[in-house]
Amino acid sequence: MKDHAVTDPISEAIAQSRATPRQTLRATVPAMEDRLYTIHPVLDHGFVRAVDYMGDDSAIVQAARVSYGAGTKKARDDAGLIRYLMRHWHSTPFEMCELKLHVKLPVFVARQWIRHRTANVNEYSARYSILDREFYIPAEDHLAAQSTTNNQGRGQVLEGEEAARVLEILRHDSMRAYDSYEAMLSQDGQQGLARELARMNLPANIYTQWYWKVDLHNLFHFLRLRADAHAQYEIRAYADVICEMVKDWVPAAYAAFEDYRMNGAHLSGKGLDCLRRMLKGEQVSQEGSGMSAGEWREFQALISG
Amino acid sequence: MKDHAVTDPISEAIAQSRATPRQTLRATVPAMEDRLYTIHPVLDHGFVRAVDYMGDDSAIVQAARVSYGAGTKKARDDAGLIRYLMRHWHSTPFEMCELKLHVKLPVFVARQWIRHRTANVNEYSARYSILDREFYIPAEDHLAAQSTTNNQGRGQVLEGEEAARVLEILRHDSMRAYDSYEAMLSQDGQQGLARELARMNLPANIYTQWYWKVDLHNLFHFLRLRADAHAQYEIRAYADVICEMVKDWVPAAYAAFEDYRMNGAHLSGKGLDCLRRMLKGEQVSQEGSGMSAGEWREFQALISG
Amino acid sequence: MKDHAVTDPISEAIAQSRATPRQTLRATVPAMEDRLYTIHPVLDHGFVRAVDYMGDDSAIVQAARVSYGAGTKKARDDAGLIRYLMRHWHSTPFEMCELKLHVKLPVFVARQWIRHRTANVNEYSARYSILDREFYIPAEDHLAAQSTTNNQGRGQVLEGEEAARVLEILRHDSMRAYDSYEAMLSQDGQQGLARELARMNLPANIYTQWYWKVDLHNLFHFLRLRADAHAQYEIRAYADVICEMVKDWVPAAYAAFEDYRMNGAHLSGKGLDCLRRMLKGEQVSQEGSGMSAGEWREFQALISG
Amino acid sequence: MKDHAVTDPISEAIAQSRATPRQTLRATVPAMEDRLYTIHPVLDHGFVRAVDYMGDDSAIVQAARVSYGAGTKKARDDAGLIRYLMRHWHSTPFEMCELKLHVKLPVFVARQWIRHRTANVNEYSARYSILDREFYIPAEDHLAAQSTTNNQGRGQVLEGEEAARVLEILRHDSMRAYDSYEAMLSQDGQQGLARELARMNLPANIYTQWYWKVDLHNLFHFLRLRADAHAQYEIRAYADVICEMVKDWVPAAYAAFEDYRMNGAHLSGKGLDCLRRMLKGEQVSQEGSGMSAGEWREFQALISG
Repeated sequence: MKDHAVTDPISEAIAQSRATPRQTLRATVPAMEDRLYTIHPVLDHGFVRAVDYMGDDSAIVQAARVSYGAGTKKARDDAGLIRYLMRHWHSTPFEMCELKLHVKLPVFVARQWIRHRTANVNEYSARYSILDREFYIPAEDHLAAQSTTNNQGRGQVLEGEEAARVLEILRHDSMRAYDSYEAMLSQDGQQGLARELARMNLPANIYTQWYWKVDLHNLFHFLRLRADAHAQYEIRAYADVICEMVKDWVPAAYAAFEDYRMNGAHLSGKGLDCLRRMLKGEQVSQEGSGMSAGEWREFQALISG
Repeated sequence: MKDHAVTDPISEAIAQSRATPRQTLRATVPAMEDRLYTIHPVLDHGFVRAVDYMGDDSAIVQAARVSYGAGTKKARDDAGLIRYLMRHWHSTPFEMCELKLHVKLPVFVARQWIRHRTANVNEYSARYSILDREFYIPAEDHLAAQSTTNNQGRGQVLEGEEAARVLEILRHDSMRAYDSYEAMLSQDGQQGLARELARMNLPANIYTQWYWKVDLHNLFHFLRLRADAHAQYEIRAYADVICEMVKDWVPAAYAAFEDYRMNGAHLSGKGLDCLRRMLKGEQVSQEGSGMSAGEWREFQALISG
Repeated sequence: MKDHAVTDPISEAIAQSRATPRQTLRATVPAMEDRLYTIHPVLDHGFVRAVDYMGDDSAIVQAARVSYGAGTKKARDDAGLIRYLMRHWHSTPFEMCELKLHVKLPVFVARQWIRHRTANVNEYSARYSILDREFYIPAEDHLAAQSTTNNQGRGQVLEGEEAARVLEILRHDSMRAYDSYEAMLSQDGQQGLARELARMNLPANIYTQWYWKVDLHNLFHFLRLRADAHAQYEIRAYADVICEMVKDWVPAAYAAFEDYRMNGAHLSGKGLDCLRRMLKGEQVSQEGSGMSAGEWREFQALISG
Repeated sequence: MKDHAVTDPISEAIAQSRATPRQTLRATVPAMEDRLYTIHPVLDHGFVRAVDYMGDDSAIVQAARVSYGAGTKKARDDAGLIRYLMRHWHSTPFEMCELKLHVKLPVFVARQWIRHRTANVNEYSARYSILDREFYIPAEDHLAAQSTTNNQGRGQVLEGEEAARVLEILRHDSMRAYDSYEAMLSQDGQQGLARELARMNLPANIYTQWYWKVDLHNLFHFLRLRADAHAQYEIRAYADVICEMVKDWVPAAYAAFEDYRMNGAHLSGKGLDCLRRMLKGEQVSQEGSGMSAGEWREFQALISG
């Protein structure tokens, strides 16, 4: 029953006109060419698809070498240079690559996503157009209880009757809200409410869509926060799909990102000091660390893995 | 029945701690001091209140004179220099002033507002906290029909039964959605759905709130678009209130903004050419203008006022 | 004696590797393909060359139609829609196109250019590398006197002995500064001063280079300010070359930009009011206009062309 | 012989008008009030002085609590909450504070500084005004040789004759370039070259000045990079002075910044893995670490302190 299809005439026209390969002298990545215009399904009705890209791993290296001169050429191979740039937080060479995505996503996910300001966005406008009857209803294994230990977290998956009740509410309220939306818009025997007003009745699980264009440095920042275990599952589902795409697009940069950002960790001065003492064989306790109970707990989790 | 009150303990603590005037050497604007922390009501439950500001008209002049040197001092008084800066699109001196607002607003207004990227925002998080049962229900005179000539516009105000029906729907669906939200969150005899999930059932007329901080140049850009007659009424209501505030804060800059941006107009090369010919006494028709029918209509409206 | 050549091994390697056309499904513009990697000379040693681009006129239209829905399709052809977007200051669809340039330019031009913040830059680093002995020396017809009426403007071209004297000074001081730079860097019989310090002896007419990547909306903003008659000649020379490039890349967008931004003009509320009165046959004087002497002068110049 | 004075009439007028304390309800920091308008000397002729500020430690907490709700209040004191925000990379609450500085600095420092794009700048314009005869000449203990191991680094301090020769060159070339600048500008018996052209003869150690306004999050980013041991000494001298200022302004935020960013460190996934093995008593070598020689060297330096 899932529907990730793009059936509007514009998208079809684009897809057709782009189906014919053309010649270019620009940096080209065959693995990204394979992904172009392909719908990558996310959640129950959402998707991500790459619409365009600029640059590749070499474009990062090329920009870095403008900055640091030809001398760097011999010193290091490309992947090594990219690792060096990532390790030392050199962000500008990564800004030389750009990705443009077409994304279909629930409004509450869009509201988190848009907080990343350094990107270009064109969103479907519900002032101009009528939204489709498509709502995100979580799959059963993502129907989580409120965490009892973490204000913003999820706890265990809901079970049995409670799960059924929640799904019933979400489905029923979505349909009812959309029925009301249609009833208010209708011009059948009445004037019909303005679209820009009627949309206010629609809940945050309705789907919207947008074009989103971002440079690789800012995309990595987005992915570090949103493909993280602490991100809300629904936006993480999008971030995970984009990670796979980026891995194909700029494999060396993605490998460095994965090692330094996704799998890496940050230590405070206090944490670093404790660590050095522990490596010398000293027994360090929370009291001796200068850390609060919360910091100490996080530090312990970090070093024991 | 309207409720713009801020009754949470944090806001009260702030209000109290700030009630005592302190001494400062910074640029200070008495008329803005009077507005600080005061709730300016907007719509049925919303508000804008100034939380802090930096700079005044003199700060703009001061920054401009760093750039253009002391020689400009004699040439012009402050208001004249500010008009000159506005006329010639010198944006950086206006960036030297900064305003911080606390705003309570419906989610569908927040979604338009956030598109202005060059600002700092801290929004109430419905992942951490439970939203209040407060929804925007339009006043009867703002219950407009869809425009029949403009895809994104409003037409005449709805009347009689249709208006009553729409209000009934909006009120009923809001309450029902909130009942469901509470039912899903409840931990009474069940686990309780995670807040970050339950919120998806809430419609776009629910109120949220945020701190929004912006420099004067970008604030003017926001006001030009959102205090404009083509903006959706609900965001314009906020922009109008902010205009009054800015008029008190930086009166010379606001006067220049009003004359050049709010009351001013932009002409294309074609429009300028027509105008010059018309001023010389020539009769110019659409055919002779090089403009499309739509452009010509807008041009005619512009020059006849 | 002019030298715009790029002879370093990296650039050559890139040029070679890119000489072979590849297949792509992305939006492709044949006229831009012809310009890729080609050196467009500017000033005596500078250049602009396109290194990559993303999108075309259709990408703008496509993004606009995501926002405004399929309904807009019939209403208007692509060029008409692009004119509409430009006329109503819809900036986000233009942000969907991106251009990457390699630019060689004097440092004092780079200092103006970098003020445009919404772009990505990788500049040649004189901390890592040694700069070349290349300085901008104006051609005789650009050797202008200080304007006597405008603090920041240029007056007539210098003549005869004065022109010769200035050129002699610029040439001699440049060479001398570079000799000193080399003498301080030299490790022949001495330690050699750090590059990051030695560079401070070099004047602002030395050439640097960078990769500069920008979206079309921000590029248009740059071109409006820098291809303008009031811009300093040296940066305008770059802007003019980029205009030609953009005209080939996105012809419909460039035509709209030219008509609305380059050839268009902005009127204040006061100016608009005067104009309307004049069109009705009224004689309007400065006194009756509400404008200052300076504004009135600019207004008169505007309407008489 | 050092001269950090600000003797222009505008600065004096500002200083006087601001000398009288006024009353405000805004967040006020006494220790910053003491610093306002005070010249903090940097290098031989440069300075930093605070011109305005917005917010304090409480403003950060207040913004965070809007986001995370009143519930966080009990859990943690303010300093603890600020540490939590810093540890988990929550940037938006820090953006709620803003600082405005007046800075006098050599052009080559300004060129590094301006690369931080998220800030507002008004720089002294050498198109409008004539620059003063003030050049940065390094103190003897900062006259460093080029590093032999690091392309962008400094080695040992130059000694004896070489140091004397370098200082002589820098002083002589600066004076000579300025003499030529004056000779070209002179209108005594000649037209006088345009200021915007004459400035190109001036070397990068000439002083310029600007107003620079930035939010605390972006200021911390600037300070992390520029107060770092790898930053060029001359910009670090400015960053160090600003650090002292920020410590007075927002002491809790600065303490968190110092512990997590200045004294903290980042580990890659590989580094973290090695660390965990070492803490369990395993002997880990470069070969077994998966790191390159360079990474391994940096890792060893990090954990041994």
